Parts: sequence; structure tokens; C-alpha cells
Amino acid sequence: MKPNFSLRLRVFNLNFWGIPYWSKHRVDRLQRLGDFLNFESFDLALLEEVWSEQDFESLKQKLLPTYPAAHYFRSGVFGSGLCVFSKHPIQELTQHVYTLNGYPYMIHHGDWFSGKAVGLLVLHLSGLVFNAYVTHLHAEYSRQKDIYLAHRVAQAWELAQFIHHTSKRADVVLLCGDLNLHPKDLGCRLLKEWTGLQDAYLETQDFKGCDEGCTMVPQNCYVNQQELEPYPFGIRIDYVLYKAVSGVCVSCKTLKTTTGHDPHSGTPLSDHEALMATLYVRHSPLQHSPSPTHGAAEMSPLITVLKEAWTELGLGMAQAHRWAAFASCVIGLGLLLLVLLCALVARGKTSEVTLLLLSPSVGLMLGAGAVYLFHVKEVKGLCRARAELLHMLRRARDAEDLGSVSQPAQQEDRAEEQ
Amino acid sequence: MKPNFSLRLRVFNLNFWGIPYWSKHRVDRLQRLGDFLNFESFDLALLEEVWSEQDFESLKQKLLPTYPAAHYFRSGVFGSGLCVFSKHPIQELTQHVYTLNGYPYMIHHGDWFSGKAVGLLVLHLSGLVFNAYVTHLHAEYSRQKDIYLAHRVAQAWELAQFIHHTSKRADVVLLCGDLNLHPKDLGCRLLKEWTGLQDAYLETQDFKGCDEGCTMVPQNCYVNQQELEPYPFGIRIDYVLYKAVSGVCVSCKTLKTTTGHDPHSGTPLSDHEALMATLYVRHSPLQHSPSPTHGAAEMSPLITVLKEAWTELGLGMAQAHRWAAFASCVIGLGLLLLVLLCALVARGKTSEVTLLLLSPSVGLMLGAGAVYLFHVKEVKGLCRARAELLHMLRRARDAEDLGSVSQPAQQEDRAEEQ
Repeated sequence: MKPNFSLRLRVFNLNFWGIPYWSKHRVDRLQRLGDFLNFESFDLALLEEVWSEQDFESLKQKLLPTYPAAHYFRSGVFGSGLCVFSKHPIQELTQHVYTLNGYPYMIHHGDWFSGKAVGLLVLHLSGLVFNAYVTHLHAEYSRQKDIYLAHRVAQAWELAQFIHHTSKRADVVLLCGDLNLHPKDLGCRLLKEWTGLQDAYLETQDFKGCDEGCTMVPQNCYVNQQELEPYPFGIRIDYVLYKAVSGVCVSCKTLKTTTGHDPHSGTPLSDHEALMATLYVRHSPLQHSPSPTHGAAEMSPLITVLKEAWTELGLGMAQAHRWAAFASCVIGLGLLLLVLLCALVARGKTSEVTLLLLSPSVGLMLGAGAVYLFHVKEVKGLCRARAELLHMLRRARDAEDLGSVSQPAQQEDRAEEQ
Repeated sequence: MKPNFSLRLRVFNLNFWGIPYWSKHRVDRLQRLGDFLNFESFDLALLEEVWSEQDFESLKQKLLPTYPAAHYFRSGVFGSGLCVFSKHPIQELTQHVYTLNGYPYMIHHGDWFSGKAVGLLVLHLSGLVFNAYVTHLHAEYSRQKDIYLAHRVAQAWELAQFIHHTSKRADVVLLCGDLNLHPKDLGCRLLKEWTGLQDAYLETQDFKGCDEGCTMVPQNCYVNQQELEPYPFGIRIDYVLYKAVSGVCVSCKTLKTTTGHDPHSGTPLSDHEALMATLYVRHSPLQHSPSPTHGAAEMSPLITVLKEAWTELGLGMAQAHRWAAFASCVIGLGLLLLVLLCALVARGKTSEVTLLLLSPSVGLMLGAGAVYLFHVKEVKGLCRARAELLHMLRRARDAEDLGSVSQPAQQEDRAEEQ
């Protein structure tokens, strides 16, 4: 790589809000999104909530001349909603579906059915390996009483781990998506601390868009105004995050958001605001010999956030245990009722009520059995994430005790140097 | 690394067959396994089918002085059954749960409930990064009519992808486990071709153990003799696979299997045979400058196996579509029955039969609904794996057409060289 090497990368991210038969003006918005993406000709466009594969296919056809490479990440019942359009060839791609993603019986929330995931595509640009990730975490339906908090934290941890383990050979890492996390939320801090990713909004010198970089704003006519009442400027839950792994440095030259209106005319493109970042990748001689050691002071925020996450998942586990216990009580009651009804039938006391209750009691038992199994599985999933967190917490503490051991995000550099 | 550097690694792998209340002599076998592992003092012991976490905990306590690091990979309802014991500190760990893993309504097979997965642990030994993977794929209950074939191929692909994407910075990659695949099975070839992993049994000059390296043999008193009838020597479904990624070369000095008996006395340790490999890692100056180009002839086996896998998953998809269609018919019938019964009740023709049928028709609809959703999800999972295979197939074909482009497993080397 030449010393004066530099590369510009223009990236677009949008949660499209594309629920068939539900999201307003979906077809029209899709049409305008296609026009906009063609007009702007980004290097990479990453979308969330494209729930219909037909929508993806029609967009793919429309964008083919400008973005010859495209991929839809399939998972769950409806698909993950994630897709990418790239001006450059996609070398490799894969995905990771989150272990925990809400509850199947919360049909009105629907997250469980969507199979939330993180998609990875590897690009080779100017001799550099780019790992671009796109994701969408579980929605937050109530900030005051968030029953999905533990799941979202577990997802943030899985996301961080997936990025950490799959990007060790990448030169540049890029993560775009709707994290459903405010900047100071536990999941967001965990993700940043563990991966070392930087927030484009906080890093850029040139930001144009909504106040405080918000990506759901009251100005947007599709947004539920009541939900945003406590936040006069809106909320920031969509992100462009990035980092350089070695030999190069990445900076965010400009970051723009839409501002609740269509970039050209008409209604907004979605209920979320789009993010448009221009990243500069430059040769960085300093990064060639990174200091592999970090003092205890730099380990401390990681330890704090690992502890917090471990505690939060513990609360989630206790809740899951309670639900499993409740389901087993229902199974017991269903069984009791069934035995009682069978006894009545055996004694010839077959009334209409007896007959009517026979099948529901079996149904109750089966339903409660399914709920029980689901929550036992949830406990296992949370326990798995906690065990990983605890392991890394212990290692981080050991490193802190030693006083000068590399941060996990840089461990690979140390290994190579040995 | 010194030019005369060499490192010896002794590895143990066993599918322990530890189903509580079902597997014969479980407690006694666990006891003897612990004694054996302590006596032999391997560097790494990787186990599958340790279904009870209590069993893992008791083994962990027993092995603590010899193997200070241990981890149980939790997933599904019962756990993944996977666990590891290491003489060396585990630097990092994570896991990937396979998207497809049988059917929840096939309760007697039970694989769906176990949440089959691949576990990864990263070790740092003598300045080298070791990625050790342990896995267990879906069981094969009938070789003639294998309804899980597509799921196992999809799992093999996910496993290969997980290893490919997480081992790019590793110096040595090791995969142990029960693949439930014969050496020439599609999944096994796909895994080897995509990752470049080598088979310890085929590579070693010093093998001692069962004929043809079999790991389920008729001599073992726990094995169902009828199932092994077509295979007089038994079958080889457990593996030790390895590769060096860069700068080093790995060879398998010795490979041993148990032979259907306890290594010391008594009944065998499991219904599977244990694998014991001694690997040598040496400095390899040749590997420092690997030839990044491969001719068309070397691309061909990869293309063949990618095509085969793509076709097999297509058959699986068609089957899943048929099941989803069948379930929708049942939903329709249930709905019809329900409307009919409601009409009878509305007209006051409430017989005992009407009442008895009311709830089952609702149950039928709900059950069929669940089956429908499950198979739609299965279609998505298979479709996802097929899309990834197709993408890599196209890239492999492009490389073949170009005549001299690096194999996917070496793409990272090329990227770095640029």
C-alpha cells in the first residue's frame, strides 16, 4: 500500500419499515428509495425491515446498473429484513441468527417470527479487506417496562462476539443498522467496548441532519408522536460504526441524516431517518506498530460494562425461570383437571361441560408444555451469554491485575507479534 | 518464532453418550472417563453428548488439577452436549447454534431439543493462536431414508462457514467432533473442501485402533448391532481434523482409537470410540510465502461439491414446501370443521359429538399452524444456505474461468499480500 493511499467509501443505511399490508405508502416509498439510491450511487447501501422478498427483488432489479451485487439475508419465518446493495463485488457472505429474539406467543410484537440476525459481507477494495455488517436488534416497545431488555443485551453481546471473531483479518470493519439502543444504553456500550467500534456521529467533524443525530424524530409523519413525547428531539437508535483493524486508519468525513422528509419531495422514505456517511480510509504508518499494551485505567470501562451486562442477564434468567415455573404449575393444573374429567367420564357422569372441558385441558397442558420448553431454552441462551461474559470478565480482570495487558479487541495483534 | 520451533499437542475426543436415565452405566463410565483423562493428561479433551450439566460439573471438579480450564456450551432445551477441558488457559470462547436441526415434533429423535452447535475456544500456545472447534451434527437414523440429510448438509455448510470466517487470524485450526457423516458423505466433503481441513486418520503415518479408523464398531457392547450390519468393520463418523493457516505446518504424529473396550478394564467408555491424536506444529518457512494461485484443476472438486450441496438443499426445500402445503391444507380442513360445528351449535343442534369435536378442531388448527410456521422457517433456512452456496459457486467458477485465482480458503492470504 502506498504511503499516500486513501480511499473514499460512501455508505447508506436505512430501516425501511416495509411491512406488507401495514406500513403506509410502502410501494411508493420503495420506488422513491430506489430512485434515490440510483441517483446518489453509494458504494454500499444497507437496509433493514425489508420484510418482503418481492420488495427486495424489485429493488434489486431497479438498482442492478448502479449496484450489481445484492443479497437478502433469509431467516425466521418472514426473513431477517436485512439486505445489502453493493457497487463492488461481494467476495464472501454469511450471517448469524441471534439465539434469543423475543417470545413466539407475543404475536402482536412479531420479533420472534422475524429471526433477527447480523449479516456479514466481505469486500476487497483497493487491496483492503472490508467486513461490512448489517443488523437489526429486538425492538423496544416500552422503555419503562422493557421485557425484552435481557434479550437485546444478549443480542448485543452475540453481535459483538460475531464481529470480534469474524473480523480478525479485516482491514476495515463497518457496522450499520438499527440497534434499537440509545447511545448510552448497556447494549450499545457493551458492543462498542468489546469491539472497539467508533460511532460515526460522535467522530465526524461534519454532521448535517437531525438534532443530536436522532434517527426517529417527531417531524417524521410516520412516527408515533406519543412514543416520542419524552424525547423532544427524537431518539438515536440507528448507527454507522466503524474501525480500522491494522495498517490503515478510518475517519468519518461527513455524516448526514434525512430530517423527517423525503430527501427530494413527498413523504419520508421511512419512519426512521436514513444515515449517509462518507468514510475515508488512509494508510496509517502509526497503526503498523500499534502499542499492544493498555493500562489498567483503559481496561476499567470494559470491566464495568461486562459486569453490568452479566447482572442484567442474571435478572433476565430469573424472569425466565419464573415463567418456566409458572408454566409447570399450569401443566400440573391441566393434568389435575384431566384426571378429574377422566374420572367423571369413567363413572358415567358425562355432562356437556365435562366433554367441553376435556379437549381444552389437553390443549392447556400442551400449550403450557411448549411455553415451559421455550423458557427453559431461554434460560440456556441467557446462561450461555453470561458464561461468555464471565469468562471475558475474568480475563479482563486478570489483565487489569497485571496492569499492562492488551485489550481483547487487540489480542490478535499481540498474538501475531509473538 | 525460532526456525527449529516445534510444539506437541495431545488431543482427546469422545462422544460420551451421556443421556440421563437412558444411557447404560453412565455414572460408572463418567467416573472412568475422568480417571482416564487425568491419567493421560491430554492438552485438550473435547466431548460430545454430555447432556447433563451435573455430569459436566462433576467431571470439571475431578479434572480440575490436570485441566484447570473447562467450558460447557449451552444451547437448546437440554444443552448442546458439547464441553471442553483444557490444560492451557482458554483465551476466548464463543459458539454458533445451527439454524436447522431436525423437527420439534420428532420427539423420539430429540435432536431439535438439543440445539446442536459448534463451540470455539481460542488458545495461545507458545506464541501461536490455536482455534479449537468442537461440534456434533444431527444424527442419522436411517441411511436408506434419511429425512435429515438436507439439515445435516446445511449444518456442515454452517460449520464450514463458521470455521472459515472465525479462523482467519489463527495459526492452527483443530476441529473435533461427531459429524454423523461417513468420510465420503457430501457434508464431510463440503466441510473439507471449503475449509481445507485435513483428516488426521488419512494423514497420520502411525495409526492404532479399529479397522479403517471406525469410531462405531460392532465389538462395542453398547452399539446397536443391527444398525451396523451393513458395515462389518463399523462406521467412521467421529473426526479429528486440522490445518495450519500460516507460518506453521501441522502434522498428525499418531492417532489412536479405543477398540470397543475400556482402555484399561470394564465396559467401553461410550457407544462411540474415543480418538486420541498427537499433533506436531512446526515452523514452516515454505508456508510463509504460500503460492496464492491455484489452477482450474484444483478448483474443480470444490465446484463439484458446492453444486452437489446446492442440489441436495434444493430437494430439502421442495420437501419442506410440501410439508408447509400439507399443513395449510390441514388448517383449511380444521377451519371448515370449526365453521360446520359452530353452525350446528348456532342452530341449537348441540350433540355430545359436536361438543367433543369443537376443541380438537381448534387444536388441530393451532397445531397445523405451528407446523406450517416451522416448515416455512425451514424453507428460509435452507434457502439461506443455498444462496450462500450459489454465491460461492459463482465466485469459484469465476476463479476457475480466470484459471489462476486463489481458493476461497486462501483468499485472506491474497488480500494481505495486496
